Amino acid sequence: MTIGDEILFGQITDTNTQWIGTELTNIGIRPVRKTSVGDNAEEILAALGEALTRVDVLIITGGLGPTKDDITKHALCTFFGTELEINESALALITGFFTQRGRAMTELNRQQAALPQNCIYLQNDWGTAPGMWFEQAGKVVISLPGVPFEMKSLMTQRVLPRLLAFFKPPLIRHKIIRTIGIGESTLAENIEVWEDSLPPHIKLAYLPHFGQVRLRLTATGDDNEQLASELAYETERVMLLVEKWVYGYDNDELETVIGKLLMAEHATVSTAESCTGGFVAHKITSIPGSSRYFTGSVVAYDNDVKMNTLGVSMDDLLEHGAVSEQAVKAMAEGVRKLMHTTYGIATSGVAGPDGGSPEKPVGTIWIACASPTETTARQLTLTKHRSVNIELTATYVLDLLRKSILKNS
Amino acid sequence: MTIGDEILFGQITDTNTQWIGTELTNIGIRPVRKTSVGDNAEEILAALGEALTRVDVLIITGGLGPTKDDITKHALCTFFGTELEINESALALITGFFTQRGRAMTELNRQQAALPQNCIYLQNDWGTAPGMWFEQAGKVVISLPGVPFEMKSLMTQRVLPRLLAFFKPPLIRHKIIRTIGIGESTLAENIEVWEDSLPPHIKLAYLPHFGQVRLRLTATGDDNEQLASELAYETERVMLLVEKWVYGYDNDELETVIGKLLMAEHATVSTAESCTGGFVAHKITSIPGSSRYFTGSVVAYDNDVKMNTLGVSMDDLLEHGAVSEQAVKAMAEGVRKLMHTTYGIATSGVAGPDGGSPEKPVGTIWIACASPTETTARQLTLTKHRSVNIELTATYVLDLLRKSILKNS
Repeated sequence: MTIGDEILFGQITDTNTQWIGTELTNIGIRPVRKTSVGDNAEEILAALGEALTRVDVLIITGGLGPTKDDITKHALCTFFGTELEINESALALITGFFTQRGRAMTELNRQQAALPQNCIYLQNDWGTAPGMWFEQAGKVVISLPGVPFEMKSLMTQRVLPRLLAFFKPPLIRHKIIRTIGIGESTLAENIEVWEDSLPPHIKLAYLPHFGQVRLRLTATGDDNEQLASELAYETERVMLLVEKWVYGYDNDELETVIGKLLMAEHATVSTAESCTGGFVAHKITSIPGSSRYFTGSVVAYDNDVKMNTLGVSMDDLLEHGAVSEQAVKAMAEGVRKLMHTTYGIATSGVAGPDGGSPEKPVGTIWIACASPTETTARQLTLTKHRSVNIELTATYVLDLLRKSILKNS
Repeated sequence: MTIGDEILFGQITDTNTQWIGTELTNIGIRPVRKTSVGDNAEEILAALGEALTRVDVLIITGGLGPTKDDITKHALCTFFGTELEINESALALITGFFTQRGRAMTELNRQQAALPQNCIYLQNDWGTAPGMWFEQAGKVVISLPGVPFEMKSLMTQRVLPRLLAFFKPPLIRHKIIRTIGIGESTLAENIEVWEDSLPPHIKLAYLPHFGQVRLRLTATGDDNEQLASELAYETERVMLLVEKWVYGYDNDELETVIGKLLMAEHATVSTAESCTGGFVAHKITSIPGSSRYFTGSVVAYDNDVKMNTLGVSMDDLLEHGAVSEQAVKAMAEGVRKLMHTTYGIATSGVAGPDGGSPEKPVGTIWIACASPTETTARQLTLTKHRSVNIELTATYVLDLLRKSILKNS
């Protein structure tokens, strides 16, 4: 349950509940409902009551800030029929937090150490809002700050170990098979016979996302080893049907898979980006340790940069335009040479919403990969939506790189 | 209400409900609850019933795909006591969709045209899952596909105009004041007297997000002009207290504000990025039309790229290291010269989780901005979290650029 008008009104992106969902699922606690309510005591109390008729554990995030619109603690006091009192350990920690940073502590900050009397205090070493753990009639209510890294640290260090000890949850195991380059319905038709043959305790879901479809198998039972071997068996069976579209499993992202392939080959990569504007480099460098195989990138929005820094010829640009097979190949080869890398990948296209022409409408995009042996290029025909086009282009060019590495290894 | 195990289990990011929240708020419909349920008919039916005791309009996304785990339509049939039948208009549209793309249509795709008999069909021109509108006892239930741009197109073209006509909602107006460089509690202390003086129909919320705090004023009433003038008056009053931290209002993002400033000055910018790995360029180029003021970027992960492409001197790198005032200033000046831009901005730091040292722990980051008249640099001491550090560094370097443009204009 998230608390805050800002989530209902769409003024911030909620990334917390996705992360919490993953963590709970991983320890065998099945998320069955996600609720967001506003900064309104009545709504919070109603939602608290409803939730506890449905579930054994309720995790609340948000509404613990120092300001007046943060009312979670007061609502919890009303709900449990108790009152706030200053928790001395929490106060000492908050005071230390401010002393260490040389910042003045305000009365509002001091009040962050006031907690409902019936809660177990969960020490927050990463910020000033303490976590809280309540128990009532065999059920657990947990209240955490909404700041993502404080919430994550508290969950990992304090909440998950306690939940495991308290509930000893039944077993649930997932196996995710990640495909790229095949649509959801074609994939479904291809594996229909296998899908219909799955035993009732193994469920299949299709998760499409930006040119990829993930197949998620979920098995429930009470024997961990048996579940693991059943999932391995079903994975083997379905791989016979889908292998050529599979790039990884479970939490593998395209960019981590590529990182592993490059490291295994002692190879490196650089990028030359026009329409993706640095997003491909950002995806690659979002992976810790990527400096071992990524040297750098040239974002060449301007044609002068394509010519002067990447060495694309003026003739090619004049004759074929910047969105062309010739230009994108020259960009990939140019950055590979400039950065002295094994591979160079490039993107050039009309991301939109403006800049299209009858011959090259918005969504016309070229991608290329230069390897030590050859340069391959591919034309994409994508959407009218700038952010979707940037995201899809990055995915497809990383897949082009992946195939090129596999071919060269 | 979103439907899908993948959201509960944290396997996809839900961006739909944030967008819907914003759109509803903008037309004066107040979102009071957000609910996510799994692919489970019983859960869906229970949540549908609960929701309709609480609200006048319920918008459902997801669970309309062609595959077996998509059960929204069946649940809606059960809920309304009706049955599916093929809608001929929908079928014609889906058939056309496949013909146009030269793809084979499967029986699963044909079944996407089967709709509950009591629904009003909302034509989906952007994909194969039709939208649905139900009316019962003065309340409205809407079912839309979960694919973001199909959902958004259906909402904008079909749903929002119908909602306005059906409910004639009371007025709600927001004003958002965007600050950077001041913490939430210090800000709250600074404006406490003003906050306490707000009339009861104007609510204030603090929305902290990656080094920024947005102040959101929400006014409700029945006279649009009066609300607008009240919000303008309160904004003027609070600006006396916070002006030096304010960079924009409402939907202004730092990158759009910078784009407008650069265009007004006929100026351009380029970026030289080490620890942000292309993310600053990506933020700038996420804005349509950014090619008018952004020429390009060099992502220099490797020191060779810093020297050869950006012209950072080997002496500086050997004496001070890549994470230093000298190096980051040379990077900003180097990219400004290479790309012939008015401004050059640069980042270099230890993003983490590895690569820290006692002198330069993870989170030690330098940023710089080179203008026609001077180069300024600033050291940041950030967190242990790679993605947080990348996000915060991008925010602070864009703010450094903003201040430099204002100083030079």
